[in-house]
Parts: sequence; C-alpha cells; structure tokens
Amino acid sequence: MKKTAISFTKKTTHSRKNSYLSRLWLVLLLVAGGWVTACGPQSEKEAAKTENNIPMNEEELMRKAIALSIENVANGGGPFGAVIAKDGRIVATGVNRVTANHDPTAHAEVSAIRAACEKLDTFDLSGCEIYTSCEPCPMCLGAIYWARLDKMYFANNKDDAKQIDFDDSFIYDELALPLSERKLPAEILLRDEALKAFQLWREKTDKIEY
Amino acid sequence: MKKTAISFTKKTTHSRKNSYLSRLWLVLLLVAGGWVTACGPQSEKEAAKTENNIPMNEEELMRKAIALSIENVANGGGPFGAVIAKDGRIVATGVNRVTANHDPTAHAEVSAIRAACEKLDTFDLSGCEIYTSCEPCPMCLGAIYWARLDKMYFANNKDDAKQIDFDDSFIYDELALPLSERKLPAEILLRDEALKAFQLWREKTDKIEY
Repeated sequence: MKKTAISFTKKTTHSRKNSYLSRLWLVLLLVAGGWVTACGPQSEKEAAKTENNIPMNEEELMRKAIALSIENVANGGGPFGAVIAKDGRIVATGVNRVTANHDPTAHAEVSAIRAACEKLDTFDLSGCEIYTSCEPCPMCLGAIYWARLDKMYFANNKDDAKQIDFDDSFIYDELALPLSERKLPAEILLRDEALKAFQLWREKTDKIEY
Repeated sequence: MKKTAISFTKKTTHSRKNSYLSRLWLVLLLVAGGWVTACGPQSEKEAAKTENNIPMNEEELMRKAIALSIENVANGGGPFGAVIAKDGRIVATGVNRVTANHDPTAHAEVSAIRAACEKLDTFDLSGCEIYTSCEPCPMCLGAIYWARLDKMYFANNKDDAKQIDFDDSFIYDELALPLSERKLPAEILLRDEALKAFQLWREKTDKIEY
C-alpha cells in the first residue's frame, strides 16, 4: 500500500503532491488520536497488559475476575466474574447475565467459555486456564470439563455463595443423590427407541469426536 | 382488506374490475398453495400438534426429542435432542451443536433451555418440563435446576452415553470427589478480596434474586 502511494505521487504535479502529503498527515493524526482514546488513562504497562502483550500472573488474572464480579453488581448482574487465559494472556472474560439476558445458563464461567471458544474458533480450550471469582456450580464445572480447560482458580467458595442465597450447594447435594431421591422429579421413557441415535453415531465414519 | 377491495372495484370500469378479480383469484391460489406446502404430507391432527394446538402426551414429546437426536447425527451434530413443553405444547427444542458451533456448552438441553427462555422472555421455566433423548450430564442437569424446570424425562442413560465414548459418567464421578482428588487441578486464590462482590450484592436493595 505504501509503495503504491509513493509511485502515485511521483506522477503528480507539485501542488497535488503537497495535497496528498497533507492528507497523509491528517490520516496519521486521526489514527494516533484513536489510539490515545482507546488506551484511555491507563499507564503504559497497564495498557500493554490489557492487550496481553505482557503475561499476567495468577493473582493479577484473579484480580481481573474479581473486578468484573464487582462491576457486574453495579451493572444489574449477579456478583460473579471469570477470565480465561492462555500463557498469562487474557483470551476472554465473562460475567453473570442470568436475569439481564433472560438466560439461566449465562453464568460467568459459561459466558467466558463461550466467548473464548468463539475467539479461538474451537470447542477445545486445552492449554487455557480459568480464573473465576467464585467456585463453579455443577453446571459451570461440567462446562469446564467439556471445554477441556487445563486448570481452574477460584476465590469465593460454594458456601460463601450459599450465604448470599445462591443454590450452588443445593445443586451439588442433589447431583450426589440417586435419581429417585432428588427433589427434581425424573422419569425414564422409550430408551429402546432412543438407542437408535447412538447406534447411528457409532456407525458414522466421518464424525467429529469430542 | 376485503371491504377495501370491493369499494375499490365499484369505482372502476368493467374490464379493470375483471382484471382485479382475476388477480384476487391468483393471490388466493398462491396462499392456498403455500398452506398446502407448509403442511406437507402430515395428517390434519399431526399438523395441529406441530403447531401445539393439541397437547401431546409424554411419549409423543419424547419421540420428538428422539427424532431430533437421530436427525442431528445426519446434520453433523452429536446424537442428542431435547424438547421443552408446557401443558403438552412444545415451547422450544434443542440439539447438540458442540462441534458444529464451536461451543462446548451447546448440548441439546442447554440449547433447548436457552431457546425456551428467549421465547417466553424469562429466566424461570417453572411450569415447563424437559424431554431429553439422553440422561443429562452434570452441566445440563445443573442448567435444568437453574431454569427451575418442573420435571425431566429421559430415554438413554449415562452408561449408554459412556458406551459411545461420551464423558458424562466421568464428569459425574469427578464432581463427587473432593477438590484435591479430581483430575482437574484447582487452586484457591484471593478469597478475602472476592468477598467484596458478595457484600455489595447483600447490601444491594434493587437486585433481582433468582
């Protein structure tokens, strides 16, 4: 692009050359202005970290998740935040938007996993770690296993969550019980008919396993 | 619309009147043709059920979930389907799109819950039931509890899923273990700092609890 611009100005008159040079300055000024605005009042080190140029350590990554959880209370969400990082660089973040988005699955961890997978264009987050401001509920812990995350870090635990009336402990207790003893009624129906899908899956030669 | 058409033809010449009448016939024929195409080869009763005019019973709803699981294998997804119904009428359906959508949380049940919540504009599916072609994994079972579904019906079980190499049983086993004995490494960090978000939540007067 630069080469094209130079060869083009060589063919023009002196005045047109000046006109193009002044336009080039204007473009450079606008780009520089945009860059300053995007960086805001952060220090150079902070800006670099936000853009993941300098790897963050475990405590810094957890502080980011905690900051998200605190901001989210002010923004009408639940008090939960999560960060997914690879080699100390943030891949994606998530906050709890259950009531705001009318989505009971929009916990911080699930939201961060979805965002990270979209960003990395994969369903497999091997090589990444999750930093969550609270111990994951069974739904989120299940999602962490399915996403193949390497490790999880958490701050608050499920008993802290119980103290502010979140059901995490109750769901852990329920999952540990046999079907017939759970509060959620469950019934088995038509297993023989459903097995057909599993047989088709077993026989499928071009499937993507996960 | 009909009244407008009649009053308009009264003001026209005989030939224009015939022209408009023939166009009206054409429109009626097209509408009828579209209706026949939409209904396809289904019986009248079947068509009405698909549109939820006639409530379906438990077996019919489960057959719908099973049909979705079978179709999904041919469509490049996992062999899982789910239906959410209220009073025998289908609210929403879901299939497994993990590999297709690059979303490890896009299991059939989670997808159906998200779709039903979007349709009913709520995060609370009390009064609804879920029919899933396979026993939910811990992630999906957690989502079912969070969505406050009244009851779940399933066909294949988690041991059947294990036979075709899905990790449901492994994740159930992991969740039952204490943190230190799980395969997934976990570390607790900065709990004291994270508790601030929970304190803010407790003190917030205009929060939506769930």
